[in-house]
Order: sequence, then structure tokens, then C-alpha cells
Amino acid sequence: MEENAIIAAISTPQGIGGIAVIRVSGKGSIDLIDSIFVSPNGKELKGQKANTAHYGSIADNNNNILDDVVVTIFKAPHSFTGEDTVEISCHGSIYIQQNILQLIISKGVSLAKAGEFTQRAFLNGKMDLSQAESVADLISSSSAVTHRLAMNQMRGGFSNKLSELRNELLNFISLIELELDFSEEDVEFANREKLKEIVYEIRAHIEKLADSFQVGNAVKNGIPVVIIGETNAGKSTLLNLLLHEDKAIVSDIHGTTRDAIEDVINIKGLDFRVIDTAGIRDTLDEIENIGIERTFRKIEQASIILWIIDSTTDDNHIKELSERILPYVSQQKIIMVFNKVDIVGCGVIMKRKREILQDMIPDRIFISAKYEEGVIDLENKLIEVANIPEIGEQDIIVTNMRHYEALTKALASVTRVQDGLDLNLSGDFIAQDIRECMHYLGEITGQISTDEILGNIFSQFCIGK
Amino acid sequence: MEENAIIAAISTPQGIGGIAVIRVSGKGSIDLIDSIFVSPNGKELKGQKANTAHYGSIADNNNNILDDVVVTIFKAPHSFTGEDTVEISCHGSIYIQQNILQLIISKGVSLAKAGEFTQRAFLNGKMDLSQAESVADLISSSSAVTHRLAMNQMRGGFSNKLSELRNELLNFISLIELELDFSEEDVEFANREKLKEIVYEIRAHIEKLADSFQVGNAVKNGIPVVIIGETNAGKSTLLNLLLHEDKAIVSDIHGTTRDAIEDVINIKGLDFRVIDTAGIRDTLDEIENIGIERTFRKIEQASIILWIIDSTTDDNHIKELSERILPYVSQQKIIMVFNKVDIVGCGVIMKRKREILQDMIPDRIFISAKYEEGVIDLENKLIEVANIPEIGEQDIIVTNMRHYEALTKALASVTRVQDGLDLNLSGDFIAQDIRECMHYLGEITGQISTDEILGNIFSQFCIGK
Repeated sequence: MEENAIIAAISTPQGIGGIAVIRVSGKGSIDLIDSIFVSPNGKELKGQKANTAHYGSIADNNNNILDDVVVTIFKAPHSFTGEDTVEISCHGSIYIQQNILQLIISKGVSLAKAGEFTQRAFLNGKMDLSQAESVADLISSSSAVTHRLAMNQMRGGFSNKLSELRNELLNFISLIELELDFSEEDVEFANREKLKEIVYEIRAHIEKLADSFQVGNAVKNGIPVVIIGETNAGKSTLLNLLLHEDKAIVSDIHGTTRDAIEDVINIKGLDFRVIDTAGIRDTLDEIENIGIERTFRKIEQASIILWIIDSTTDDNHIKELSERILPYVSQQKIIMVFNKVDIVGCGVIMKRKREILQDMIPDRIFISAKYEEGVIDLENKLIEVANIPEIGEQDIIVTNMRHYEALTKALASVTRVQDGLDLNLSGDFIAQDIRECMHYLGEITGQISTDEILGNIFSQFCIGK
Repeated sequence: MEENAIIAAISTPQGIGGIAVIRVSGKGSIDLIDSIFVSPNGKELKGQKANTAHYGSIADNNNNILDDVVVTIFKAPHSFTGEDTVEISCHGSIYIQQNILQLIISKGVSLAKAGEFTQRAFLNGKMDLSQAESVADLISSSSAVTHRLAMNQMRGGFSNKLSELRNELLNFISLIELELDFSEEDVEFANREKLKEIVYEIRAHIEKLADSFQVGNAVKNGIPVVIIGETNAGKSTLLNLLLHEDKAIVSDIHGTTRDAIEDVINIKGLDFRVIDTAGIRDTLDEIENIGIERTFRKIEQASIILWIIDSTTDDNHIKELSERILPYVSQQKIIMVFNKVDIVGCGVIMKRKREILQDMIPDRIFISAKYEEGVIDLENKLIEVANIPEIGEQDIIVTNMRHYEALTKALASVTRVQDGLDLNLSGDFIAQDIRECMHYLGEITGQISTDEILGNIFSQFCIGK
């Protein structure tokens, strides 16, 4: 692994724009760019101070001017990667971007792999692994909440918490060793109680972090919502209303929607992955039956079920339907959405607000998809049912599956420590489990890491970051 | 017109990337960004030197951190716009880009209109109008040739030439005035000859510039090529071969291609806009006949006609076809492309190389679209027939219709000057035409301009430039 090779990539989004930035990082990168940079007053980049911007041109090997640019130089360790870095700000034509990059590559520079700049920032100690991972999350974040989670993580909130926990575990080990030292002097009892107290605290912290993944994952990947109901109850129309576009084909022919359609709607900064499904009905159409079968599987995978009901439907029939649906519902929240309220009497609505399945499914909303009435109520209901706590700037929420898995393992280890103390096991055994717990926490921050783990993480980045 | 208002825009291409750049320009922009910039060591931007880059964060009105950024400050007049300018290099998430921009806008900054940064560069005397126009050309240039033309223009080659011509015209005016002063002293004759010589030179230069538009326009917008021929001769297949993709639907059913399909192919850095057409044949299908009618109109608009012929076609029939086609051909270059050479004898090929319509259409190529044979010959032939001269780094080629129109008017004026000298008109009349000529040249560089002209030019730019 040539860690010191110079790497380069176009770091700005693909396409045409006013300006584009080509980032070049590695020892010798300033000298290298000097060889293609022409200053109007003959100055060289290598003599310049760090963090300065210089106007000039980039000339190719035949002395043809490729572009007039502004070159900014950063010097190790005060750069994103921690290495000498040059950022070339050129005109955002695709021709120019590609040709400057090719010119740099022709000088023996390697094209940066996905995430390689951030990987170098990690390897050079500019950030720990969980912070590096948050950079990719930050770039892909599309809502206020995901942005905040990624930002908290990048700015080290999670890392600090983990390092705190590791310190407490180290402290704990020293207490265990103290206990071992004094074990013959019969002072064990008091220490064990204190140890239990400490490990209880640590375990509670790790558990809280692990538990936060449920919220973190929902927020990061969107809360899965499935829309179910009988054919023609208005499922597709409802989805379109929520999406504010015409994605699902809406028609009056029963059974129009055969394939599950998935889309993301953002309500008050929270993403919901909404899946429309084939209508539930008895049919001989084989393909449609496969769709209905799939509907029930989607119910199992969702967090929230929107059961849409044509308000003109007979009460007994609604109860029959509930008997088909409810067996698939366990942890999921289910909301009855009575559609077409415009074509029924108010009495019917009043009754349905209070009665029918009230004990089984208390959450219910009344809408008219046709008149776009009640959609805001429904959106509020979704937010309410999703029950995602307000995330403050200081809150630490785990959003990364890799971190969650490591925390789960750390939790198992620390639980064994607790059990060991309860069983009065020897300090040696207990210390072993503490070290294991520290190992897993270290995996998150990258104190413990392998090339494979790193490759896996950074390959998911975009090129140029 | 608030020329000093601060403007801001995302200057990098739209979308997600490693980094994005938000440009803020105008008097007070550094102080303004200071109000949302948080430095880790508490420093303020306003005290910093020009052309320096500063790491820090952008915080919103609630002190929430939007992103960690690098801010580069440029001070008037040493910036692209000639004004104080701040470039914020942030993470390239759409959320971050939009929210930082919105935050800046919320401080009373205006969203930059298309091309407004470049317009300010022009208004602040950083570049003349033709240079400003070349910035947009540079950004949209997609080939080596268009890039070079735009680069030459941006770096002032054209502007220098124009200012040279204006100086010569000024010089000429002073000579005319000299002649007027000495008119009573009978020295007129010698001066008139000298004046004729000078004006001949100037006229030749302006004419050369105006003439260069033919090449410049072809290079910039692509050389229009039309593919014609009988149905099933292989027009669509040929287009696909040239395009290296499957765009036109190829089938064995006569008359498949009804609509003209246009695409751009780049051969050795030169763009050809290739149009496939409906096959020429006698048909009762009304829609197809409209397509055939359109084919003949396309012939008139093209620079190069590729007439594709099935090699198995009878000589007499080819001659009949030529009688239908040639009436539409005047200035255009026509190339006979004999396809399907794989299924005819070599003798037929040899004969067709030398004979059939040799006097009318000397350019001919033999290909087998099926075996992808002869495509490179055809590409070379296209380059040859296009007859675009090699464009050197110093060559001045007019690519802009507005410039061409102004040059045409300037040429008319200078021609009147020449005629006036020949007719021994009074110096007063001649000076009037010279001033008109200078006026038109001044329109190109923007010494003469109106808000309407400027609005027209810069509205064609992208936002952020």
C-alpha cells in the first residue's frame, strides 16, 4: 500500500457548472502542480504559504493553456487529509475537468479511489473511523434530521462518548487489578459492590447507544410504511397525494396496482419509505394473487401500516378484513385511513371515530383523497405514530449498522462482566471480558481495524471525497 | 440596478459530490460571511489577508452547525468579479448546499442571476464583453477545438485584435483630419493613396474575421450532416455505427425511420450533427411522405450529405435517384456511401470507384455496415470534406453570431469608406463611416452596450458563473 503516493480526483459533483474543483493530495503534490501551473507574474507555488489561493493557468505538456484557475495550497498536517494538498478551482466544463485531471494523472499521480481522501484523513489521525464514516453520511444526507445525526457524528460526539467509555473500562480494569492485589487482605467485598456499580453504569451507556440504533436506522433509512386495503379503496391516490406527484397509475379498474411501488416522502424532515401494494381481494388472476401474497409480506416488514378503507364499506366487511390483516401485525403500528368521507353521511363518520375495532386499532384518520382533504391530518398522524424523539444537537444516535453490531457485541461482553461479578468470578476472567468489550468499542473508532474493514467502508464513498 | 448588492449562488455543478462551492460577491460580503462563520480559534475573516483560505464552520441563526467548511476570501479588485468575494467550500450534500445558500439569502443577499458574476466582472472592467461571452462558451465546450476557441477568446486574443483595429481606425481618422487640414495646400493626392492602402488593410482584417465565422460556427455548433438514401439502404445502421450506440431503430421493414433523428458524433475533436432521415421511395403512406418531404428540406440545411446506396442497386436506378437528389444540392458537399459491399462482386466495386456520376459526385466511400467495415474511411472522409483548417493557439476564429453580425456591419461601413476614397468623397463623409465601423467593433467588446444586450447575453449563462 503506497500510502504516500499522490492521488487526485474531481471532488465537485459530476456535470457542467460554473466552477469545478480538482483535489490533489500527497507528499510532493505542491511541487507536482507547480510543474503544470503558470503564474502571470512567474511565482512558484512551492514558496507560498499554506492556506493561500493563487490565480494562474494550467498548461499541458505542449504548453497549451487548459484553463485559467485558482489554486489553493494546504500543507501537512493542516489539510483535510493531513497531507500536502492542492485544490484546483477551474471552469466547470467537462472537457476542462477531464483534461486537467488526465494531465495530472499523466504525471504519475493515481486516480483517487472512492473515499480515499477521507481514508487518508483517518490513517493520518485527522479523524477516527466513525467520524470518517459520517463524512459519507453527511454528503448523502437529504433531510434536517439525517444531516444533524451525521454532523454530530462527524464533529466527534459519538467518538467522545466511546473514548469516555473506554476510559471508564480502563479505570475498571485498574480497580479489578487493585482488587487482585488486595485479594488476600479481605477488602474484596466493598470493592465488588463499587465495581458492580461502575459496570452497571457502563453497561447502561452501551445499551442506550445500541438501543438508539432503532431510531437512528429509522431516521437514516426512512421509516417503512405500507399502504394496504381493498382494491379501489384509494391506495394509489393516497400515495400520490403524499408524494405530491403521479407515480402510481390511478384508475377505476379494480386491481390496477400489482407491483409494490416504493417511494420516499419527507414529512417535517423525517423520511418515510412508503410502499403501495396490490389490493386485497379474492381473485382468480394468478399474477394478482402473487401481488396480494406480497402485500402480506410487506406488512411484516413495515413499521407503520396505513390500512385504507372506502368509507362506504359495510362494518361487518371491515371486521372480516381486519381478521385477514391483524394476524400479520405484531410490533407494527396500524392506522385505519377512512377514505371517501365526501360520499358518506356525517353520522357514519362520527360512529366510526368512536366505534368499530376501537379496541384493536385506536389510530384512525378520515380523509377524502379526491378533495385532498385530511392529508395534513394523516401526515401529522404518521409523525405521531413514528414516535421519533426530537434529536438535539448533543444527542448521540447510532445510525450505522457496523457500529450497532460492534455495540451489540460490546454489550454482550459487558453483560458477562456484570454476570461475572454477580457470580463472584475471579478478576482474571472479568478482565478478559472487559478487554473484549474495549476491543469492540475500538472497532467503531478504528483503533482496531483491518484492511478489509477499511476497504469495505471507504468503497461506499463517492470518488473525490 | 443595485450593482453593489451582495449576490450568492452555488457555483459547482448541481448534485451530490465530495465538495461544493458557494460563491458570494459584493461589497460587504466578507463581513456578511463573518456573521455566520465560526472559527475554531475565534479568528474573524475581516482581519484576514486577501487570497487566504480559512477552516471553520457555518452556523445558522440558532447556532446549529450546518457544516465544517473552508472559506477563501478575495478582495477587490483582485477577484473574478473585481469585488470582495468569499468562496465557501462545503460538503457536497444537497441539504448542506441549499441550507447554507438559504442562510446567506436570509441575511439580505440576492440570489445571483444567471451569469451575474461574469456580468459584474465585465462591468468592473475585469474583462471585455467578448471575453465574458467566452466564459459561457468555455464552460459548455465539450471538444478540444471548441475548448481552444473559447480559451483563445477568453484570454483576449480576439479583444486584442479588435482593439488593434480600433487603433488603426483612430489613426486613420487622424490622417483624414490631417488631409482636411492640408486640403488647401494641394497635398491631397499622396495622402489619399496612403489612406486607401490603410483602409484596404483594415477591411481585409475585418473581412477575415467575419469569414472565420463559417468555420467558427461549424466548429462550435457542429457540422450538419444529413444521411439520405432509399429505404433499407442502411441509413440507420450507418448512423448507429457512427454513434457507437443503438439510437435509431433498425429493422428490415422498409420505411422504419420516419422522424429525423439528430445526434452529435465527435470525430477527432470535431462535432458533426448527424441527422438520419426517412428513406426516399414512392409510397402512398401519407405520414411517410411527409417524412420524405422533410428529407429534402434537411438536405438544404446540411453542410454534408451522406447519400447511402445499397451496392446491389442497378446503375440506372442510382442515376434516377441522383436526378431527384441533386436539384436540392448547391453549396453542400455530397458523399456517395456504397453500403453492403460484402454482398457484391469486386468488379462492381472497382467500376463504381471510377465511373457512375464521377463528374457530379466525386467523393465516394465503400462500406459494409454489417461487418463494420469502412467506417474509419468514412470518418476520415467526413473530416476531409468538412475541410476545417487546423486551429492554432493564436488563431482568431469568430464563433458568436452576435460578433458575426457586428463584424458584418463593420465590414459594410469600412467598405463604404473604401468606396468613398475611390469616389474622392470629402473627409467628413468618410470620417462618419469610420466612426460607424468603430461603433460596431465596440459593440463586440462592450465599449458600446445596452442593458438589453447585456441582459440577453448573460441570461444564457448558467447560475453560479
